[in-house]
Amino acid sequence: MYTLYHHPFCPHSRFIRLVLGEYGLDLRLVEERVWERREAFLALNPAATTPVLIAEGFPPIPGAPVIAEYVDEAHGLDAGDRRLLPTSTAERVEVRRLMAWFNEKFFEEASNPLVTERIYKRFMSEDNGGGPPAPDIMRAAKVNVRYHLSYIGWLAKTRNYLAGDRLTYADLAAAAHLSAIDYLGDVPWSEDDAAKSWYARVKSRPSFRPLLSEWLAGVPASRTYVDLDF
Amino acid sequence: MYTLYHHPFCPHSRFIRLVLGEYGLDLRLVEERVWERREAFLALNPAATTPVLIAEGFPPIPGAPVIAEYVDEAHGLDAGDRRLLPTSTAERVEVRRLMAWFNEKFFEEASNPLVTERIYKRFMSEDNGGGPPAPDIMRAAKVNVRYHLSYIGWLAKTRNYLAGDRLTYADLAAAAHLSAIDYLGDVPWSEDDAAKSWYARVKSRPSFRPLLSEWLAGVPASRTYVDLDF
Repeated sequence: MYTLYHHPFCPHSRFIRLVLGEYGLDLRLVEERVWERREAFLALNPAATTPVLIAEGFPPIPGAPVIAEYVDEAHGLDAGDRRLLPTSTAERVEVRRLMAWFNEKFFEEASNPLVTERIYKRFMSEDNGGGPPAPDIMRAAKVNVRYHLSYIGWLAKTRNYLAGDRLTYADLAAAAHLSAIDYLGDVPWSEDDAAKSWYARVKSRPSFRPLLSEWLAGVPASRTYVDLDF
Repeated sequence: MYTLYHHPFCPHSRFIRLVLGEYGLDLRLVEERVWERREAFLALNPAATTPVLIAEGFPPIPGAPVIAEYVDEAHGLDAGDRRLLPTSTAERVEVRRLMAWFNEKFFEEASNPLVTERIYKRFMSEDNGGGPPAPDIMRAAKVNVRYHLSYIGWLAKTRNYLAGDRLTYADLAAAAHLSAIDYLGDVPWSEDDAAKSWYARVKSRPSFRPLLSEWLAGVPASRTYVDLDF
């Protein structure tokens, strides 16, 4: 049994939930609002970021990339050909490259500004940076979503899944970040058919269901969020 | 024989040079100015960041974290008890946590703004964001250096090396980022004796020598940069 300190709309937390879901691992979720800088949470992760995974008998495991490596080492072999980080060197490089692309670049340029402006800031006090969303930040982030979507479309056209033949961490990372902003209606799916049909495939996996049931009081989900045939 | 696309003052590139140096691996260096967005380089790494490692027979390996995992998988076992990513789960978590701390948090808050303002901007054209350093950015980054230095000091006081008993990726990442800004004189060593004596130990390793020989025309090195007994 794992415990995950997360936020329902934190894209990195969503990625780890998908990973654990794919491996069928039991999970208890604890919602953390990192901007409140709760002392007990800072003791778990001085970087004050979600997600943090608690595995019995181990020190806390903070941050999506560190958790992903841990899960591969603890459960990858047992997963056989459903392993999410493949075994060959070239494939591992490509999966890690794309995982970093989404968890760092897409996060910084698109998912983090949109989620921060439109979701987190609703819950933050004024001292913590709360308030109405900043239109210029949202505008820039939405422009960035379009170029990322066309990169995803290009990968999905040349390969079966983003990093190759099979589902990997790369798909789950990309889909996790997209899902958080898709809730907000910030993904222009009509602009890229290949990206859209790849996402429809990933979204219809059972591991995705818990994410799609996350709703936020006061912020209605977009028309496409739950629809598997959007 | 490896080839590394790097910049002499890119902290992530310095980290990988230290790693390869510790393992005694031969390396050819190619300087890349990422802000010029050279097309052939973008084909190697669409994220347009250094470092990128070229290993014969493999696709390009971009980004310090991906390279570090690759090097561990390719050379870690052979290194025996000099392995830089230890074998036990708890140690691997701690080393990866600290490696991410320095490569992400220290980079974002301290080393990247200082290196960008004081070094990269000298070489950038005005269109690329070149020009004189921004005093407010440098001031904020210098404040951040102090809290990071005291965290390093705290770790160095409670352990032999930053992540435990032995030298690991955590030490090399921290030292790489510090070395880039130490060149500029931006590390207030006198504020933390434990951090200073840990850094003196790491800096005196043979793997460090090539970094200390990097000098920049027009920007003299600080008094402490080369001195092993600063």
